[in-house]
Amino acid sequence: MKPEDIRESSRIARRMSDIQPFHVMALLARARELEAQGRSIIHMEIGEPDFPTPQPVIAAGIRALQLGNIHYTPALGLPQLRQAIAAFYLERYGLGISPARIIVTPGASGALLLALGILINPGEKVLMSDPGYPCNRHFVRLIESLPIGIGTDSATGYQLTPELIAKHWDAMTTAVMIASPANPTGTLLDPENLRAIVEKVHALGGKLISDEIYHGLVYQGEAATTLSVSDEVFVINSFSKYFGMTGWRLGWLVAPETYVRDADKLAQNIFLAASTPAQYAALAAFQPETIAILEQRRTEFQRRRDYLLPALRNLGFDVPINPQGAFYLYADCSRFTKNSETFARDVLEHAGVAITPGVDFGNYEAQRHVRFAYTTSLENLMEGMRRLQAFLHKS
Amino acid sequence: MKPEDIRESSRIARRMSDIQPFHVMALLARARELEAQGRSIIHMEIGEPDFPTPQPVIAAGIRALQLGNIHYTPALGLPQLRQAIAAFYLERYGLGISPARIIVTPGASGALLLALGILINPGEKVLMSDPGYPCNRHFVRLIESLPIGIGTDSATGYQLTPELIAKHWDAMTTAVMIASPANPTGTLLDPENLRAIVEKVHALGGKLISDEIYHGLVYQGEAATTLSVSDEVFVINSFSKYFGMTGWRLGWLVAPETYVRDADKLAQNIFLAASTPAQYAALAAFQPETIAILEQRRTEFQRRRDYLLPALRNLGFDVPINPQGAFYLYADCSRFTKNSETFARDVLEHAGVAITPGVDFGNYEAQRHVRFAYTTSLENLMEGMRRLQAFLHKS
Repeated sequence: MKPEDIRESSRIARRMSDIQPFHVMALLARARELEAQGRSIIHMEIGEPDFPTPQPVIAAGIRALQLGNIHYTPALGLPQLRQAIAAFYLERYGLGISPARIIVTPGASGALLLALGILINPGEKVLMSDPGYPCNRHFVRLIESLPIGIGTDSATGYQLTPELIAKHWDAMTTAVMIASPANPTGTLLDPENLRAIVEKVHALGGKLISDEIYHGLVYQGEAATTLSVSDEVFVINSFSKYFGMTGWRLGWLVAPETYVRDADKLAQNIFLAASTPAQYAALAAFQPETIAILEQRRTEFQRRRDYLLPALRNLGFDVPINPQGAFYLYADCSRFTKNSETFARDVLEHAGVAITPGVDFGNYEAQRHVRFAYTTSLENLMEGMRRLQAFLHKS
Repeated sequence: MKPEDIRESSRIARRMSDIQPFHVMALLARARELEAQGRSIIHMEIGEPDFPTPQPVIAAGIRALQLGNIHYTPALGLPQLRQAIAAFYLERYGLGISPARIIVTPGASGALLLALGILINPGEKVLMSDPGYPCNRHFVRLIESLPIGIGTDSATGYQLTPELIAKHWDAMTTAVMIASPANPTGTLLDPENLRAIVEKVHALGGKLISDEIYHGLVYQGEAATTLSVSDEVFVINSFSKYFGMTGWRLGWLVAPETYVRDADKLAQNIFLAASTPAQYAALAAFQPETIAILEQRRTEFQRRRDYLLPALRNLGFDVPINPQGAFYLYADCSRFTKNSETFARDVLEHAGVAITPGVDFGNYEAQRHVRFAYTTSLENLMEGMRRLQAFLHKS
């Protein structure tokens, strides 16, 4: 070890060597460079809707600022927003959820940190699918617990199953994280599988954390909320994706009633409260005119998916099952490459199309996969496919 | 152990039994109850300026929303805001800080979590003064490290000294947290002590995290930034207090250059980015017309302090040194009580004045102390003192 290495290893917490940056960020920086040079880039790497925040929500945010609603809210959130979220569960899912169980958070990120901070001891294991949302394993690592990625493939819709959970469970396992619709695969857990997973986790004495941030963005079937199966689960949701409020940083956690006091005291300490203007703005997110706008957007996302899925298959990508939600397609690119990272770089440099390499979502068969996000217009998607066609089949 | 207790102890992470709620929250809830019954309550418990966000900042926030600036920013923050913060260091402190070292965060809370997450391993000790900002020890506990509160009193201005740090340092200690101006005591570290502390911590091989969120709210002397002493420190700051942007949830971290990449990847994973509308609004925080408003407010805070300090002493509270900044007075109430918690409750119930018991800031002589916040008008403070006079000296 050279002296610098020793200094390097002592100067920083060990967890930082397990916490990965988003690899796509380097790609995005390179894309911006190319654009600055005058190159046209089709962006299919971005996990953020291209639509603006709906106008009624913007208007409510402006009104809140005009009225001076900028002081701290209670740590659990504005009471009227917790009420509105509860009313949304009744309206959309026919579920009566007490507003007392709803905790408004700084993005789904805040909700994840709360749930894990409350539940998981250091050294305990949390099971999750690989591929999956990369931050999950880093949140678990932050609090000195062990994220266990379970390789999943199209056979289970890239989702965990009761069998996979049972197989990987051991004495140190205390929780399972699931997502439906999932990032990066866009797949759903159907109500039966959802119920079976909840029952298995609870039978094993564990806790279930369910990521439902892509609810509302479903084009085939219906996304069931885990709350319809059990009151003893932790459900993460967000105003970012369906509601189009990414940069506002607002989400929520639904916790079992007995954990709300703990969520309150942890929230008080680690973030005080979610953004006040964002909370007032979000009060307009459930209004009929907002929902009408969001449903139009959902239809547009569906058109994009319905175009992109066969187009990618025609190009030679393998997408073995039809993703039903979110705005992602997870495509097997092994016909073209053994290394999806260099492939993504080549596609950017030579075809002017930005996509995300599988390595951003885990390790399992990551080098065979890339993620396409349809967060850009149908026209752009078509242009992207033309470019890929020319690049992949030029010889 | 009854079966419920076993369930209770296994259902939740152990850290939660060390993480305390703000005791003042129960008091605040009781105050609201009394107000709902028609009682008048003077609020001197609230750690939030009573002033609105300055109008130019509100206007910039509204403009950002009108322009649709609601998408994610880079994890390190808007480049132009990082520039503006750097320019502020040059203007106010005559210090050239590279914008590359400035990381915009969701409140100072986000900055604290970043700094600790990057630096501190589980089991390692972090020294801090007791009394102090209560969240500090809970952040340290969240990541499975050990907060070590060092009892301080008026002899050292309630601040750590090189001697205290050396005395409490052991092989497991890796960092020290300081704050100037401090909560709850309002005291400053003068430049000489600041330098001596930095040198001591670095000589011991540790890291220094310096909370400067009350900078700008100084009424006597000048608050030196730790950045003027060393580039190897971690400085936390905030738009909440001096800039009057509490509910927007925006702060920043200045990190040594070699840590910025780590801060970037941790920020990407644990909060993605700070609120976008808040970041655009904050661009107006450094404009001359905003600063003029803030300086008027500072003068008003000073008038309040200059009234409240002798008034409390006249009533029989012991405030042994003159607090120079923030908007708090930390008062010894042992002439009236042996238990500052019941004292704060009695003062609320019988005098209609809400104050914060010492226990919210640590353990050291907490039962002898209460905190008075002068975040309400001079008139209200005067009425509060009349009520306290009547209550304390009625017999």
